Amino acid sequence: MFNSFGNLLKLTTFGESHGPAIGGIIDGFPAGITVDFQAIQQELDRRKPGQSNIVTQRKEPDTVVFLSGIFEGVTTGTSIGFQIVNTNQKSKDYAHNTNVYRPSHADYTYDKKYGTRDYRGGGRTSARETANWVVAGALAKQLIGQIKINAYTSSVGDLFLEKPYQDLDFSKTEDNVVRCPDAAVAEKMIEKIKVIKKAGDTIGGTITCVAQGVPVGLGEPIFKKLHAALGAAMLSINAVKGFEFGSGFCGAKMQGSEHNDIFNPDGSTQSNLSGGIQGGISNGMDIYFRVAFKPVATIMQNQDTIDADGNATQIQGKGRHDPCVVPRAIPIVEALTALVLADFYLLNKTRRAF
Amino acid sequence: MFNSFGNLLKLTTFGESHGPAIGGIIDGFPAGITVDFQAIQQELDRRKPGQSNIVTQRKEPDTVVFLSGIFEGVTTGTSIGFQIVNTNQKSKDYAHNTNVYRPSHADYTYDKKYGTRDYRGGGRTSARETANWVVAGALAKQLIGQIKINAYTSSVGDLFLEKPYQDLDFSKTEDNVVRCPDAAVAEKMIEKIKVIKKAGDTIGGTITCVAQGVPVGLGEPIFKKLHAALGAAMLSINAVKGFEFGSGFCGAKMQGSEHNDIFNPDGSTQSNLSGGIQGGISNGMDIYFRVAFKPVATIMQNQDTIDADGNATQIQGKGRHDPCVVPRAIPIVEALTALVLADFYLLNKTRRAF
Amino acid sequence: MFNSFGNLLKLTTFGESHGPAIGGIIDGFPAGITVDFQAIQQELDRRKPGQSNIVTQRKEPDTVVFLSGIFEGVTTGTSIGFQIVNTNQKSKDYAHNTNVYRPSHADYTYDKKYGTRDYRGGGRTSARETANWVVAGALAKQLIGQIKINAYTSSVGDLFLEKPYQDLDFSKTEDNVVRCPDAAVAEKMIEKIKVIKKAGDTIGGTITCVAQGVPVGLGEPIFKKLHAALGAAMLSINAVKGFEFGSGFCGAKMQGSEHNDIFNPDGSTQSNLSGGIQGGISNGMDIYFRVAFKPVATIMQNQDTIDADGNATQIQGKGRHDPCVVPRAIPIVEALTALVLADFYLLNKTRRAF
Amino acid sequence: MFNSFGNLLKLTTFGESHGPAIGGIIDGFPAGITVDFQAIQQELDRRKPGQSNIVTQRKEPDTVVFLSGIFEGVTTGTSIGFQIVNTNQKSKDYAHNTNVYRPSHADYTYDKKYGTRDYRGGGRTSARETANWVVAGALAKQLIGQIKINAYTSSVGDLFLEKPYQDLDFSKTEDNVVRCPDAAVAEKMIEKIKVIKKAGDTIGGTITCVAQGVPVGLGEPIFKKLHAALGAAMLSINAVKGFEFGSGFCGAKMQGSEHNDIFNPDGSTQSNLSGGIQGGISNGMDIYFRVAFKPVATIMQNQDTIDADGNATQIQGKGRHDPCVVPRAIPIVEALTALVLADFYLLNKTRRAF
Repeated sequence: MFNSFGNLLKLTTFGESHGPAIGGIIDGFPAGITVDFQAIQQELDRRKPGQSNIVTQRKEPDTVVFLSGIFEGVTTGTSIGFQIVNTNQKSKDYAHNTNVYRPSHADYTYDKKYGTRDYRGGGRTSARETANWVVAGALAKQLIGQIKINAYTSSVGDLFLEKPYQDLDFSKTEDNVVRCPDAAVAEKMIEKIKVIKKAGDTIGGTITCVAQGVPVGLGEPIFKKLHAALGAAMLSINAVKGFEFGSGFCGAKMQGSEHNDIFNPDGSTQSNLSGGIQGGISNGMDIYFRVAFKPVATIMQNQDTIDADGNATQIQGKGRHDPCVVPRAIPIVEALTALVLADFYLLNKTRRAF
Repeated sequence: MFNSFGNLLKLTTFGESHGPAIGGIIDGFPAGITVDFQAIQQELDRRKPGQSNIVTQRKEPDTVVFLSGIFEGVTTGTSIGFQIVNTNQKSKDYAHNTNVYRPSHADYTYDKKYGTRDYRGGGRTSARETANWVVAGALAKQLIGQIKINAYTSSVGDLFLEKPYQDLDFSKTEDNVVRCPDAAVAEKMIEKIKVIKKAGDTIGGTITCVAQGVPVGLGEPIFKKLHAALGAAMLSINAVKGFEFGSGFCGAKMQGSEHNDIFNPDGSTQSNLSGGIQGGISNGMDIYFRVAFKPVATIMQNQDTIDADGNATQIQGKGRHDPCVVPRAIPIVEALTALVLADFYLLNKTRRAF
Repeated sequence: MFNSFGNLLKLTTFGESHGPAIGGIIDGFPAGITVDFQAIQQELDRRKPGQSNIVTQRKEPDTVVFLSGIFEGVTTGTSIGFQIVNTNQKSKDYAHNTNVYRPSHADYTYDKKYGTRDYRGGGRTSARETANWVVAGALAKQLIGQIKINAYTSSVGDLFLEKPYQDLDFSKTEDNVVRCPDAAVAEKMIEKIKVIKKAGDTIGGTITCVAQGVPVGLGEPIFKKLHAALGAAMLSINAVKGFEFGSGFCGAKMQGSEHNDIFNPDGSTQSNLSGGIQGGISNGMDIYFRVAFKPVATIMQNQDTIDADGNATQIQGKGRHDPCVVPRAIPIVEALTALVLADFYLLNKTRRAF
Repeated sequence: MFNSFGNLLKLTTFGESHGPAIGGIIDGFPAGITVDFQAIQQELDRRKPGQSNIVTQRKEPDTVVFLSGIFEGVTTGTSIGFQIVNTNQKSKDYAHNTNVYRPSHADYTYDKKYGTRDYRGGGRTSARETANWVVAGALAKQLIGQIKINAYTSSVGDLFLEKPYQDLDFSKTEDNVVRCPDAAVAEKMIEKIKVIKKAGDTIGGTITCVAQGVPVGLGEPIFKKLHAALGAAMLSINAVKGFEFGSGFCGAKMQGSEHNDIFNPDGSTQSNLSGGIQGGISNGMDIYFRVAFKPVATIMQNQDTIDADGNATQIQGKGRHDPCVVPRAIPIVEALTALVLADFYLLNKTRRAF
């Protein structure tokens, strides 16, 4: 129930960071799609650790294997099982955590909720889970090929990419390791992350995501508003603290006379403070939103903490961790966006009698 | 499917603003709760139109009638049906909208999605629907009586209540019509809204909500993280453009060494940038979040727009509308928060074998 | 969650037999269907009490009122709320049951499960709830107009209609009060029920239902097999003890060489022991199944029983009850069949990419 | 959505008979259960092919591997992933089926529904899927240890075990290969199956299942009646054509005065025609039901059929198939029964406020 994502197109997942494998089942994917396996693996490669010197140096090939639901390269309409074997779990990196609660992690809450936990690398709380989402999202992208989804790093700490997305060239996002499509800003961001890393610290940031070519009509208007589904998706990503779309929090400062998007004769709008969604339903304009990520909780500095018995102790990160999670989260944001849009795309086929 | 909210405790609703009634069914409410009907009606009264001169002057008594699931004042465990009769629909106020798309409303998207719409007062898109949520939320509050939920107006336009919630006295929220617990700031907010109203314009704002006394362990950690559920709930409210919890968007500017919440020996934390939720699960600290509302789209000024045939025309709001939606949204925010917490409270009863 | 029926087309209901009203919400009904309200009321009239001298003599007009989701006679795609006011509850008929458990009713199990119950007329356990289903089913029929669903009484006690359905004229089902399309057998059945009624007793029976014109492809093959969904639906009707489709329990006595349905060149089959469903998916042949109803538990004879404290006592039915539930259950069987088929019809729109 | 079974305790599965593996994810299993892995494997061994000379001679070790959700032998409350590698797929056995529709199989309906299918061994339609169910059911049994579930072969063709279940010794069910606890009847059944097998034919049969020690109160009374959930589960098993519980179809011939179960002072009943369920809720008495299986469609005789182009052709089973599916279906029936009861057991924890 709670390891599932989506309605008609439903992803259910399993896996701990240090178990034998992670994986999932995609249910409701329509029959008849010729799968581009290479495109899926490429998305996984964008997320995988060890890509550059500003992300964690863990090495995991993260190769997805499909176990069902695809026959002779074409989806059959049956459930698609897949798995990614965990090959590089250094559980000993975590042996010192057995009994100690890492600050601002989920160790304490898991223990209190379940009375037990897999302490190796965070177990199920690890962002390793998001590799499953990238697989499913990459498949979903192939279902809604006409929609273009582009996410990019829009801030690292207090360093912001000020340009609006319309002035950016998304084809340059992958040109640098921080995934900011503006080369000059990217360079500064990379520099900042290197300084932070050297200090054994971590830093937060934001991702902006833009979906273009979305047909009018996606979203269900009361409790599955398109932006509510996107928001819930983004807030499911580890370390996310906030979500805004269209005018967002800035819109809360504005007046109606300046905020309203005036129509053109063809139904498009002159401005797009609505962010492509009105009344919870896509209106055909670009959908854009922004996601806030806190700094990674694991730092390479000594921190006071407690153990499971409430005794004071100290802890220092020893594994290989990301100084800034944002660059690796780009494909995750895109994947969940694709899953949400593909789900609503299927749902929308049932909303009119004729 | 999409007019339902919640998992084990599930609210399903119906109703258009200008139909004969709105209402809902609450499924999964446990047996054995003695219902305080007056408390429910009080919450409805907080939301209803016509309360003060800074909200819409529509008059609707908004009296809820329970039709099932409660016998001799006690919940029976069966589904609770309720309805609120619509008494004061002035459909003629909307006759001029029949064929015209109001800017930044859902008229256009509904028409394109469904091929038809109830144009009277926005039909199902009207915030009148939220009266249903207030009923269900008021009941949910009675299930989780130990949890205290307090929302308040934290900004109107660019006028912010700067004090942190810890410095506020929530018992004063209802002392003024804008529902800001700081009397001095409230006065300025009210003044601002009056000016805006006089200009025939509308203005946005934010609501901060605090839940205290939440037990440790609520929330399901992958796709039903507590904050993701709260975020989806808030983004379901009409006019909401953003959600952040704990450190929120500010957290994205911080470093791990300053953002981490250090434990006290009893498991509580010295700071609470996590906002009471770690790994998607409540940690027993205060939960707090902020919700951004755009300015109401209906303004009393002439605006360019189009009709259903794409012809240019003009429109001016004629009904009785809110210049600022925030004060009336306070009980709605609280209601959905209560529904989310009550749902997770029930779910949590099933998460341990013993 | 458990007062809901269906997936994409979802009915959620509320109501006790002696509360002010029963009703429901139909979610997921597509936009654009012109509703035939008279056809809905006709189905309700087929179910209502007091139609003839072989059913309960309670008089209830059972008039359905639609509260939302239909605008100017056409479905809008929003949730359809409806209710039926309870006009003729003689609660005093049940005053003697307050504390006494009626044998083979749900009094005991409700009390043990919930710790409380509405004892008036069975409360939520009453078959009055099925009026809600008939409303929703009658609407569903209008969505899948090409499918013809006909149910009829195929046995009363040990009196069987031996003819296969192919030899029957369904247009004659409504010609007699027992709803058996063979006049001669119907007469015997009516006679039998009259004798049973006179003795203050009740009797069981079976209903056969046939769906014709079902397109190939309805049903989801693992856990939502078409026949499993139909079976679950039928087993939801009060007093049902068994379900079989196609060859049913007889098929369990047969050999593969005689049971297999051999194909015609057009994909139809020469025999139809499969009952129109293969691998959980409709194959375009007639779907037919049989439902077993136990005798109504309320009899007009003295019975030993216990009260809530475990004291021995006696009880005798005093209300107005059906001597045989089967004739009034015919429209209920048809309604749930229509709901199941309409749900799968919508789902099937999403199962192929192109 | 449709490869999932259960509500709070939810099994989602994948896998084709001739793909690399089958498997599933169990969501909602509570934390804190020490898993008996051997007991799970034993259940799988009861289901696996090649156990005796009256079942298919395929040899598959069917070893389940758990991939997550269990840490140091104890469930953690996170999703439990598992898989069973397919080791003995002789796809060439099915090469002749590529384009031919086997009578009374799902080849035709899959092709028409999805426009494509995995023709090897039936793909997703194969009963191999049921191995997944046995794994999940064996785990569920460990959650509800106090409930004893025993299924057995109650008929093969027209050969019936006439004794009521109360007169049987369930400990003898595994003493013979047909899984009938009466040795004399078992011998006749085995003889019958051998004759049928020799003739290249198959035969149907029934399974009776008894659940003892079920607490009062399981089941949700409207659309998740306990018997409706059990019925839907049984009708999900390949080849099942009918389900009845308690008095079943016989009850439809009876009168209320003979059918009602009279209470004892302790709330138990003198008779149990209700089959342990009243109003959809368990009453603490034994639950018993009967399931009808048609003869396996694959026979070792020549049959007329068509290919995908509608051309007449012939087909003869060449693989290794069961002459009677009933003995191997016993653990499947028990597994699904355990899953249903465990799900309702968890749900019931949420139905009372105190």
